[in-house]
Amino acid sequence: MRLPADGIGVCVTGKFRAAVRLCAAIGIASFALGHAQTADAPMLQVPARSVPVPTTVSPQMAKIVGAPLRANWNVLPKTGDEWKPVADAGAAATIKNIPGMTERLHVKVEKMVIDGVRAFVVTPEVIPPENRNRLLIHVHGGCYVLNPGEAALPEAMFMAGFGHFKVIAVDYRMPPEAYFPAALEDGLTVYKNAIKTIDSKNVAIFGSSAGGALTLEIILKARQDGLPLPGAIAPGTPMSDVTKVGDTFVTNAMLDNVLVSPDGFCDAGTKVYANGHDLKDPLLSPVYGDMKGFPPAILTSGTRDLLLSNTVRVHRKLREAGVDAVLQVFEGQSHAQFYRDDTAPEAKEAFEEIAAFFDKHLGK
Amino acid sequence: MRLPADGIGVCVTGKFRAAVRLCAAIGIASFALGHAQTADAPMLQVPARSVPVPTTVSPQMAKIVGAPLRANWNVLPKTGDEWKPVADAGAAATIKNIPGMTERLHVKVEKMVIDGVRAFVVTPEVIPPENRNRLLIHVHGGCYVLNPGEAALPEAMFMAGFGHFKVIAVDYRMPPEAYFPAALEDGLTVYKNAIKTIDSKNVAIFGSSAGGALTLEIILKARQDGLPLPGAIAPGTPMSDVTKVGDTFVTNAMLDNVLVSPDGFCDAGTKVYANGHDLKDPLLSPVYGDMKGFPPAILTSGTRDLLLSNTVRVHRKLREAGVDAVLQVFEGQSHAQFYRDDTAPEAKEAFEEIAAFFDKHLGK
Repeated sequence: MRLPADGIGVCVTGKFRAAVRLCAAIGIASFALGHAQTADAPMLQVPARSVPVPTTVSPQMAKIVGAPLRANWNVLPKTGDEWKPVADAGAAATIKNIPGMTERLHVKVEKMVIDGVRAFVVTPEVIPPENRNRLLIHVHGGCYVLNPGEAALPEAMFMAGFGHFKVIAVDYRMPPEAYFPAALEDGLTVYKNAIKTIDSKNVAIFGSSAGGALTLEIILKARQDGLPLPGAIAPGTPMSDVTKVGDTFVTNAMLDNVLVSPDGFCDAGTKVYANGHDLKDPLLSPVYGDMKGFPPAILTSGTRDLLLSNTVRVHRKLREAGVDAVLQVFEGQSHAQFYRDDTAPEAKEAFEEIAAFFDKHLGK
Repeated sequence: MRLPADGIGVCVTGKFRAAVRLCAAIGIASFALGHAQTADAPMLQVPARSVPVPTTVSPQMAKIVGAPLRANWNVLPKTGDEWKPVADAGAAATIKNIPGMTERLHVKVEKMVIDGVRAFVVTPEVIPPENRNRLLIHVHGGCYVLNPGEAALPEAMFMAGFGHFKVIAVDYRMPPEAYFPAALEDGLTVYKNAIKTIDSKNVAIFGSSAGGALTLEIILKARQDGLPLPGAIAPGTPMSDVTKVGDTFVTNAMLDNVLVSPDGFCDAGTKVYANGHDLKDPLLSPVYGDMKGFPPAILTSGTRDLLLSNTVRVHRKLREAGVDAVLQVFEGQSHAQFYRDDTAPEAKEAFEEIAAFFDKHLGK
């Protein structure tokens, strides 16, 4: 039984009559994305629009939200070797900001190798007593091909600085050095090493984008391997479905100024990492995994995020599995913009929320 | 300090170069909404698109999500007298569904008057022992002008049926019978009556759209009047900002098939109810109210919801005020579609979540 739209009723005399009328009136041409979700179903024709920068975000966030679409979003390297110079150039730009962040966030960074895996330990100046026996493991984002070396650090530094936890940031292997499941294996190796000396319930794993997917993938694999699970996780805007299924892949395309399109650079990077492996494998698209028994989880996204659907689908799936999972969605933000500027109040807010969630759920 | 977009960098050679290039290539015309948010800021040009029905929702929800835009969304009655026939016609259509819902949801409905306010008591067939000393108060949606009489009932019936609580649905006065703050006063009257005999901590208030706003408005007013506050609230996709500020008023316009546009029927209805009162008054736009000390709150929205920003802004504001507030966002849904079909699994899920939240926070 379907209720009519309150008091107004839906179109009954023709499919999308109102939309078509409006579209005709303003003379739009339609932008059909390459991957129809249900090819035979009726399509809603949404007209083009001029979208202003929202007034409901901080001035720092307004600059980020209002930035133009990422340049070269539709340049699609096809091999690990083609990705390497792109990743190196991006990393060089990111790394320039690390010293300033170190200072503002009051953290120190040390390089190390853990059971053969490259990593960084990020330590805040002050660790409160309740966090002294706790450890966070960070898996960075970047479509499985970007952010090598110190470029892996920003989100780990935000977390250490705003949350006052010690964080190990995993500088996992990426193409062309290694392919699926190298990133997952490296994350798991660091986790296994950590729980040799720390109760797994005192450990949390977090990361965003590919790092959000890796967080979920590590839990799936750890459970499969019979390991004790961590006390909490924070998958930020996870690339939980790399088969391009999910409504906001269409509805937020060309609006999200970071990922821009489901057919853009991030898809290209993921395919290079997957290296022919089935993209629907839950170890690449964890939304298809069984989430029963997962640790408490906090998920973060934004209203313009191309992966908002990827995020809310995981949230629903966790809740359906009975997991204590909470969701925060930030106004106006595109993909993973909550860790783009450490001076933005929204960044502090997002990581303080994650820290409070960890504090609530982790052992001491 | 702003980090560059990971490894790819943002446009540096021209504002919105990629977007403009794409737009030019497909020959779009731009649809500029009437209410610029920051008139002088750069605009992102988002091209027109064909949006398929998502495959990530239930078949029942796919029908609702895939329905055409609401007919007459841009017909704008200007007075209470002009609204009345529209409201009556809509109510007649909704009321036809009540008997079937009564049966499927295993609830009974009784009409009553509480301290002069028209209301209905919705009682589930089975009330578990923990809910026997609890009461929910429902304030319906409909832009403050729609859903009179039994048309007020659907959401209250979903809640009673899926959540197994006794619910009082307030059939508050609307134009042309009465104007701001009549709806709020009637809701408050029912609440005050309830807490004469039931501990306020055993009472929850809920409702969606205008009902979500009214839920928040009742709390603001109750606190102002020095009344004890309820144990929990569930503002669903609240009309928390009727000044049309909020990013998804633009980004989800012409995509949300229920409200369709910030300049549509719902805005017209609200203005008639406001009757010249300042729309930014927190008793009409509660996002501008002080939320310190608010009861625990669960908010519900959808990824296509025109009021997604209205919802997440309230969530953030509640969290900033230290309130235990949680958010659920459903894949693909437009405004308030979680209570459109009682056979949709998403409906059961949404109300079971709200019920679990109430169970956690209400006194017994």
